[in-house]
Amino acid sequence: MAVKKNMALLIQYDGSRYDGWQRQGNTDNTIQGRLETVLEKMTGSFQEVHGSGRTDAGVHALGQVANVHLNTDMKEEEICLYLNRYLPEDIGILNVKEVPERFHSRLLVREKIYTYWVETGQRCPVFQRKYIYTLGEKPDLEAMREGAGFLIGTHDFTGFCTSRNKKKSAVRTLKAIEIIPHGSQLEYVITGDGFLYNMVRIIVGTLIETGLGRRTPRSVAETLEGLDRQTAGFTAPAKGLFLTKAVYGTEIFGGDGR
Amino acid sequence: MAVKKNMALLIQYDGSRYDGWQRQGNTDNTIQGRLETVLEKMTGSFQEVHGSGRTDAGVHALGQVANVHLNTDMKEEEICLYLNRYLPEDIGILNVKEVPERFHSRLLVREKIYTYWVETGQRCPVFQRKYIYTLGEKPDLEAMREGAGFLIGTHDFTGFCTSRNKKKSAVRTLKAIEIIPHGSQLEYVITGDGFLYNMVRIIVGTLIETGLGRRTPRSVAETLEGLDRQTAGFTAPAKGLFLTKAVYGTEIFGGDGR
Repeated sequence: MAVKKNMALLIQYDGSRYDGWQRQGNTDNTIQGRLETVLEKMTGSFQEVHGSGRTDAGVHALGQVANVHLNTDMKEEEICLYLNRYLPEDIGILNVKEVPERFHSRLLVREKIYTYWVETGQRCPVFQRKYIYTLGEKPDLEAMREGAGFLIGTHDFTGFCTSRNKKKSAVRTLKAIEIIPHGSQLEYVITGDGFLYNMVRIIVGTLIETGLGRRTPRSVAETLEGLDRQTAGFTAPAKGLFLTKAVYGTEIFGGDGR
Repeated sequence: MAVKKNMALLIQYDGSRYDGWQRQGNTDNTIQGRLETVLEKMTGSFQEVHGSGRTDAGVHALGQVANVHLNTDMKEEEICLYLNRYLPEDIGILNVKEVPERFHSRLLVREKIYTYWVETGQRCPVFQRKYIYTLGEKPDLEAMREGAGFLIGTHDFTGFCTSRNKKKSAVRTLKAIEIIPHGSQLEYVITGDGFLYNMVRIIVGTLIETGLGRRTPRSVAETLEGLDRQTAGFTAPAKGLFLTKAVYGTEIFGGDGR
């Protein structure tokens, strides 16, 4: 007799050809939808898969965490093998762990880390072409870091998000923005307790404009205080963005999470 | 007045959607064909592009070298920018250098380095799915290295190639086969003065069979001596293979060639 178990999944995906994480209506082409379809085939009944957060169309994941309640006798490893066998090649399950009944990947997530990649050279790198934004200019690191400094801490990030539900709080805590140069490429590592719609991409776009001298570092603080999206920078393209890690109170997958 | 110049190109490509390097007839979908089309558009006249060697359908390149005689006043950098602007995103020009009139990238190449990637875990890695062969088993390194040892040196490699022109010599010098583990992945680095059709892929397939105990290291030497393709291993899939470097008597592109 199968027992209902709460299973956490550690997931990677190439978001290039998907309409984002969150399941949609009839013409579903989402990561959540693909997972649910394969799990329904596996167990014989539909169960909703909860992700640590939604990723937009075209955004990738190196360490998305989701959970789902499954009526199954299959072991963790068997579920992992089954999923990787039937999911498309651009979605991969790195690990499956049984977690306590009440674990919920979205409600209990403490911190998320996003990574954004920019190519400052004029040539789009062939093997990263789907995973990097080719800016073709070299933004000033110090100006970007100074602008980023204003965003760290707990703030209302209304100025840095797209069309949101105004009844919900836009207060989030941004813990760190690191900007790491790798040759002609820049890696932005952005850590926070939660993110609004398009927030990471608007932050990156605003910092890029700052680094190119199109706005002052101080103007980043002004946008934050003014709560006006119109005064922030452009929304950096989805393809440069990765959801890299979701952090919980305990280590779900052990070790480095892989 | 434009002067005819011999230009060397350093090229990267993702071979996934191409029918290999060498231009074909009417339905051309090759790397050489794409380059020639853009160069004809640039100069107004067709010129053949000579590659250091042909890569098969689905094989990638990190450092293919080609040369072409062009009637143009454009500078090296201008040609590079033009090509990257008009070539598809999965073909990239890393560098363009004017070379002496008699330089010929195929006839003068001294050494070529190919790299082959194998995933020994059962899960195909999402972001490398087009660039690695997922074997799903762990071949024994020492057995493979012992087998590879028999291939080093100058030999008739008839046993390690597919359907060839029997009038031409199959004697090649293999300088090195390194097998480098990276976590669950294996990187084969194969250096030689030239390679026959499918030779790298058959060598890798034969070494994999050796590492899995399906044949002895000694049998690699027997295939070499017997000159019989039927006794060699399988042809490893194209997608794991990269032409990594073509080496000439002088450094064409300077420094590390990038």
